[in-house]
This record gives sequence, C-alpha cells and structure tokens, in this order.
Amino acid sequence: MSTTATSTAYDHLLELLEEEAVLNSINGLLGWDQETMMPTEGAGHRAKQISLLARLSHERLTSSDLAETLAVCEGEIDLNADTEAAANVRAVRHDHDRAVRLPATLVQEAAETASAAQHEWVESRANNDFKRFLPWLEKTVDICRRKAECFGWADGGEPWDALAEDYEPGCTAAGVASVFGPLRDRLRALIAEIGASGRTPDARLDSLELPLDRQMAFCLEVAEKIGFDSTRGRLDVSTHPFCGGSHCDDVRMTTRFHDDMLTDAVSSTMHESGHAMYEQGLPYAAFGAPCGNSVSLGIHESQSRMWENQVGRSESFWKFATPLLEKHFGAAVAGIDARAAFESANRVNPGFIRVEADEATYNMHIMIRFELERAMLTGDLSPADLPGAWNDAYRDFLGLEIVDDRRGCLQDVHWSMGAMGYFPTYTLGNLYCAQIFETACEEMPGLVDGFADGRFSGLLEWLRANIHGHGRRYSPGQLCERITGKPVSADPLMRYLEGKFRPLYGI
Amino acid sequence: MSTTATSTAYDHLLELLEEEAVLNSINGLLGWDQETMMPTEGAGHRAKQISLLARLSHERLTSSDLAETLAVCEGEIDLNADTEAAANVRAVRHDHDRAVRLPATLVQEAAETASAAQHEWVESRANNDFKRFLPWLEKTVDICRRKAECFGWADGGEPWDALAEDYEPGCTAAGVASVFGPLRDRLRALIAEIGASGRTPDARLDSLELPLDRQMAFCLEVAEKIGFDSTRGRLDVSTHPFCGGSHCDDVRMTTRFHDDMLTDAVSSTMHESGHAMYEQGLPYAAFGAPCGNSVSLGIHESQSRMWENQVGRSESFWKFATPLLEKHFGAAVAGIDARAAFESANRVNPGFIRVEADEATYNMHIMIRFELERAMLTGDLSPADLPGAWNDAYRDFLGLEIVDDRRGCLQDVHWSMGAMGYFPTYTLGNLYCAQIFETACEEMPGLVDGFADGRFSGLLEWLRANIHGHGRRYSPGQLCERITGKPVSADPLMRYLEGKFRPLYGI
Repeated sequence: MSTTATSTAYDHLLELLEEEAVLNSINGLLGWDQETMMPTEGAGHRAKQISLLARLSHERLTSSDLAETLAVCEGEIDLNADTEAAANVRAVRHDHDRAVRLPATLVQEAAETASAAQHEWVESRANNDFKRFLPWLEKTVDICRRKAECFGWADGGEPWDALAEDYEPGCTAAGVASVFGPLRDRLRALIAEIGASGRTPDARLDSLELPLDRQMAFCLEVAEKIGFDSTRGRLDVSTHPFCGGSHCDDVRMTTRFHDDMLTDAVSSTMHESGHAMYEQGLPYAAFGAPCGNSVSLGIHESQSRMWENQVGRSESFWKFATPLLEKHFGAAVAGIDARAAFESANRVNPGFIRVEADEATYNMHIMIRFELERAMLTGDLSPADLPGAWNDAYRDFLGLEIVDDRRGCLQDVHWSMGAMGYFPTYTLGNLYCAQIFETACEEMPGLVDGFADGRFSGLLEWLRANIHGHGRRYSPGQLCERITGKPVSADPLMRYLEGKFRPLYGI
Repeated sequence: MSTTATSTAYDHLLELLEEEAVLNSINGLLGWDQETMMPTEGAGHRAKQISLLARLSHERLTSSDLAETLAVCEGEIDLNADTEAAANVRAVRHDHDRAVRLPATLVQEAAETASAAQHEWVESRANNDFKRFLPWLEKTVDICRRKAECFGWADGGEPWDALAEDYEPGCTAAGVASVFGPLRDRLRALIAEIGASGRTPDARLDSLELPLDRQMAFCLEVAEKIGFDSTRGRLDVSTHPFCGGSHCDDVRMTTRFHDDMLTDAVSSTMHESGHAMYEQGLPYAAFGAPCGNSVSLGIHESQSRMWENQVGRSESFWKFATPLLEKHFGAAVAGIDARAAFESANRVNPGFIRVEADEATYNMHIMIRFELERAMLTGDLSPADLPGAWNDAYRDFLGLEIVDDRRGCLQDVHWSMGAMGYFPTYTLGNLYCAQIFETACEEMPGLVDGFADGRFSGLLEWLRANIHGHGRRYSPGQLCERITGKPVSADPLMRYLEGKFRPLYGI
C-alpha cells in the first residue's frame, strides 16, 4: 500500500463526494423551505429546483471519475481494516453500485409515478376511494419489484430485502420477521392486559386550551434544555413534523401545535429534537464522506424515539418540565403536577391511525404494514386485495374493525411515494432505542432520575460517543452489537413497555 | 431564415438558459435564507453552497454548447427584429461575451478579495480606521480596473462604463454626468430653500412606541393592499431590508422595524414591495430567458422608489393608511391624521448617512460617490486621498463637515464588495421613477387622488403592461423613451420634489 498514492486518490474521492453532498445539502434546505416557508405558488418551480439538483448529484455519484477513483482506492486501502477510510470506501462502493444498477429510464419512471401517485393518493384518501388509488398502487408495486430485480438480493432472500437496503443497510425480511414474531405476541398480551385493567390515566393536561405562541416558547426551551443547539439549527412549524436541513451545523426541525393537546406538541418536539441532535452530532470534518452521514433510518429513529419516549414520557422528565409549564402558561396549568403530566403523556388507546398511536400499540401498526408490503412484493398479495387483508390484520393484531379505507389502508403516504421496505425502520428504531437505552442506564446509574434535575447532557454525550460521532462507520447491526453486546431483539423494548405500563395501569 | 431549424436551435438555447437560471434561482433562495432564517453557525457551509451553484451556473453560461447554439441562432434569427426571440439572443450574446471575457483567475481573485475586503471594511468602519481599509480599497480598485480592461469600453468612454454595464446596460459615465450636472445644481438650490424656510414638519408619528408584531401586521396589510401577492412571496424581517427569492412566483422580501419609527418601516416595506411587485410581474413563461428577467438595477429601483415615494410619501396614501393605523394600533395613534403622517414621512434633514437620507438630499450622496469612484477608476483620485476628497465633496454638495470616516467614506459596503459603477443606479432609479410616474399621471388622471380610496391596482397594471411584462426585451433607455417619449432627464424629478417640498416648507 503506497501512502502517497492512497492519499491522492482518496483525497480526490473525498472531493468528489463533497460536491455531491453540497448539492444534497442544498436540496435539504429546499425541502425544509417547501414545508415551512414557501408561498403556495412556488411549488411548481420548487419541483424543478429539487429535480435538477438530484440529477446533478446522481451524475456525480455515478460518474466515471468517481468509479475510477474508487477502484484505485480499493486497490490501495485495506478494506477490512477498522478505519474511517476503509469504512468510507466500502460505503461509497455500496452507494455507487446501487446508483448505477438502476437504469435512468426506471429512475425517471419511478419519479414520475411517485409524483402522480401521491397526488392520486391525496384525492383517494380524501374521498375514501381505494378503487381510484388501485391502479397507482399496482404500478408502484410493479416499479418496486423491477427496482428490486435491478438491485438483486442474497440467496434465500426476497425482493423486499433489495428495497429495504436503501433505508436499513443489511436488513432482510426474514431477519425482521424473526424479531417481529415474538414482539407481536408479547405486545398483544400487554395491550389486552391494559384494556382489561379498567384504569384511565389522568388526561387533564391535554384538555387545557393553551396559546400557540406560548406552546412554541415552551417547546423550544425544552428542546434547548435537552441539548438541541439553536446556533446550529431552527425549530419551526409544519403540518407534519420532520427534521431536515443542510448538515450538522444547520439542522431544521419542525413541530406542530393543537389548541388543547400539549403532550402531542411536546412529543413531536422531543422526537424531532432526537433526530436533530443526531444530525448535530455528526462530524462536520467528515462532511460529504459516509462517516459524516447518519447510518440508517432505524438508528435515526432510535434517537428520536429515545428522547420522545424513554426521556420525554418518563415521570422524571415531567418533574423537570412541570416548573417550565408554570413559567410559560402560569395559572392555566394550575393543578397539573408531574404525575398528572406523566399520565397524560402515557395513555394507551388502540386506534385506526398509526401516527396517532401510543407506545404500546404503535409497533402493531408497523408490523401489519411490513407483512402486507412484503406479500405485495413477492406477489402473494394482489394490490386489489389490500383493503381486505389490511382489515383482517387489524382485527387480528389489534382487535379493531376498520370502518373505511380512509382510516385503513389509505392512511399513509409511504407506498404512494414508492417507499416500500421503509415502515419497519420505525419499529427497528424502537427496538434499537430500548436496547441501547437499557445499556445507557446500566452504564450510567441514576440516568433517569437525573432528568428530574434537568441533567440530560450525560445521555447526549454518551450517544455522541457511541453513535453520532461514528457516522456510517459501522452498520446498524454492528453498532447495536458494539454498544449493547447483542443483536437486536424484542426483549429490551418489552421490558421497557411492561415496566412502565403495568404499574401505570395497575396490572 | 428556416423556421424549423430556428426553432430547434433556439429551443435548445432556451433549455440551456433554463438550467442556468434554475441554479441561480436556488442561490436566490439561499441568499434570502442566509439573511432571515439561517442559524449563525450555518454561515461557513452556506458560502460553499452558494459558491458551488455560482460555478455551475457560470459553467453553463460559458459552455461551448451554449456558444455554438447561440451562434446558430444568430445565423437564423433577424437580430434587429422587435421580437422576443431577437431580444433574447442579443441579451444572451451580451451576457455570454462578458462572462467569457473575464479569466477564471481574475474571477477567483475578485471573489477572494471581496470576501476579505468586506471583513476588513466591517472592522475598519467599526474602528473608524481608514488606514486599515486602504490596502483593500487599493486592491479592489486595481481589480476593478483590470476587470474593466477585460470588458473594454467604447471610444471616448472610460473604465467606469465597462463596470456599470453589469448594473445598467448601455450606461456611460459621460451620459450619467450630463444628467447629474443639472440635477445637482437644482437640488442644491432646493435644499438651501428648505433649510432657510424655518419650518419643521409634524414628527409625532415617529415618536410613538409601537409593538413590533403590530407594525409587521400593519406593513404586511399595506403591502398586500398596494398589490404584493402573498401567495407568490413572503415578507420577513432582516437587518438590512432587501428583495430576493427565486423567481416571479416565489419572491422573498424583508423589512425592518424600530420601536419608534413607523415611517421607516413603512418606507422600507413599500420600497421592497416595489421591487417585489416588479419581480412578480415578470412572465414565468419566459423563465430563464432574458425576457423573463428584470432589465437593470436602475429600472428596478424606479419601481421600488415609485411605491416608496410617489405613492407611499403622498398625502393621498396616508388618507388611505390612517384608518389602517387605527385598526392595528388603536388608541396609541390617537390624533395622528393623514396630514400628520404625511409630514412625518417627508422631513428633510441633510445628514452624513446615505441610507438615512430623505428624498431631497439622497441623490446628493449618490452623485458624490459617482464622482469619486469614477476618478478612482481613471486614476485621477488615489484611494489614499479618498477621505479628503469625500469630505470636500460633502462640504460642497451638502454644506456638511464630515466628523469621521465611519460616517464618511467608510459608511457603505459597496466598494468593499468590488461593486463600482453601482451607486448611480440609485439616482437613475429616482430619475426614471419620476419621469415614468409623471407619464402615468398624465395617462391616468386622478391616479394620485385614487390612492386615498385604496385604488392602487391601476398603477400596478400600467407598470405591468409598460415595464414588468417586457423583462429585458428593451434596454433601460429604450424603455424610458417608449414610455415617456423622452430620454431620461432631471426635469421630472425636480418638478416632483419642488412640487412637494415647496408647499410643505412654505417656500
């Protein structure tokens, strides 16, 4: 291995990656602006801006210059070494190969179909008209299967694996199913116990009408207190909360407010703060290289869920937050103590809608979607049969009778966007989260009690050291094993949920 | 001329231009975000984003594909025809030739010098330290002269002409001087008369402390009432008000507020609304082509000044606005009638600072800068002698003794940015404005009286038809002659200023 030659080819590779990443970082800002600031009539041109930058970025990732430079680097660097350079080269190979495997015509067809299908989905959902959406779902499934064939999958695998690779590298349907099986059974039992308990938590906090500007000030103070850095990011409002932006020093997150549901605003803000603090913890020195990027959607979600749930739905957190409630809302929150707020934030109510689901039932929604998209991709489920299969699954998993497709199989945007293989990352996030947080608690005794005194920096620093600072250096599975010593399983999540809900519901 | 061949080459030219323009439209948004939304730590990466897009845009404007396509179009289209296609091809030739005439090394040197010089200017102004800024001014003048030599100028012309071409196509120092001469003499006489009048207008409106959120609501309502379309733009706050954004359907303007100077917020908002309504009036169908762009800084400024001054500083406007004052500020504005507000908005006070100057003295500040930058570019004035020359000019033009360079020759950012040839566009804007508005009043009797009843759409539609809708189809001079029948002169502006200030000051 020639050090000089390596440094030249590898440096050039980093330069090429940086230009691609700068283009992507601009698209991150355009996407944020579109949801928060853009005037309505700007939409048409915004699509042109985003599409041009995506094309220029894709050209860079698939360029012959990059391909040749990458090959030189692979000849010069020990790819099995546990070094940042080796991890970067491996990840670029992964990304480049996937990018070149998709023909430009299919990319174009997928983008156009997604654009039209999303529009049709909005109309179909509004009118509860699955038949209208069906041809678009059929076309989307067809495109997804063709994409999967382009990417390919390992022996014994299936098309779903090829698509999930974009969201959760290394993830397979069989692997997911082996973890989801026990999770499903234990969750079903817990939900049944909660339903039979006859207890109803205190919901007063969410019956109070609170001014939106004060909710914003409260949420921003909470976000900053747990570690969100406002000199390197912003909090704004959007219909659907998200975390985006350009890079670790300019992270844009949003939240939403209702007149009378403060815990929704808090959980949205804490959730997006978790994503944002992960982004802010990525090393800018590695900007453009894989080691400057987040590792997967599942690991990203583990960070958002940790701050939303393990922190933000703990009684300890509400001991910290109750004085802030008084500071921002004064007499309007009289009588709401930490226990009352904690109970408000932890009500379990099986329902039709995934995005409104509580911690106990949420993963059931995901597991239903996973089974259905997996079956549509193998061809075992025809898109025409989706509503029936959906409704059967809700009866089976959650004991609910779906009343219409609007609140059934038409509720989510994901499939209309062509995002199949995506949903399980939400539950993988919850699993990683619980497993990693359990380790954090073991390594830092008193961690949760410290939240009551506003001590959040210990957890953040631990996450920075164990996750954020590595970027994509390790795969999601490697990261989980490095931190917790074990592969991901359902046990820590179930221990966490049972440990919280059994006492709360007197089970 | 072969129609088919023309349409092919010309269509390809338009495609090439569109991609360049989409890149520029993104940079427009990045620039707006930087001044309004970006967290402080985002600055370093933002510079990378803007610089990459500027390079990609420049590559497209100077590409051999564009050069060859342009040459084919020139062979196929009658360049002297009064058609949009001919105007587009002429303008692309103009822009392409200027872009290729500057060597990349000089572009790079100019950008780096401007970046460093601006930083030094901020420090030098803060510390009132001209000596610190002098080497950067010398370097900037040197670069400007080298740029001018690359561009070249017409026989009998001078270096200033070559630089001003970027801001006001067709403008020459000799032409400007011939208009500025009479303007200077008549303004000097008017300012002296005002000073000798002994009258002081009613300034009560600007002594009221008014809540900033209500000032914002008031200004936004005013902007929308005069014709700013909020579905195709936004109003935000920034330290220095500006109008930017992406394109005609997404215009971003800003304003500023003081606790106790409402007329400043109103004039800033009206000024930027004038720019914004020009941008909103450009035809999106021509996006990317010169005919989809504004014609010059001088014409742009004529639009901002018209809404700021001819409309927003008229007594008729304040008859319209006084009920809105009451609506937004209630009892806080008790006793402020239209006359009082009109007088507040029209106080004349010769001062050191250009950006704080009133309508009567503003152009004197500009004419001083024009003479000084022109002399530095010819070499007649050494940068080291600038403070003395500056102070002499202020004594001569405005009868003021400059007390320090901070409030003298260090007050403006323009020269530190390398923008020489720019200042006169402000006064050209005032001249065009007065001349065009005089014609509008002749063609639409009762125009000004109508403002009192909120009738602004007649003026806006007239400007759309006569100016905005043409984009760059006509040069600034052609546009002025088409609308007013005459070349630009000092007469209409002086008639307007004398017509307002003589009665106000009882002269």
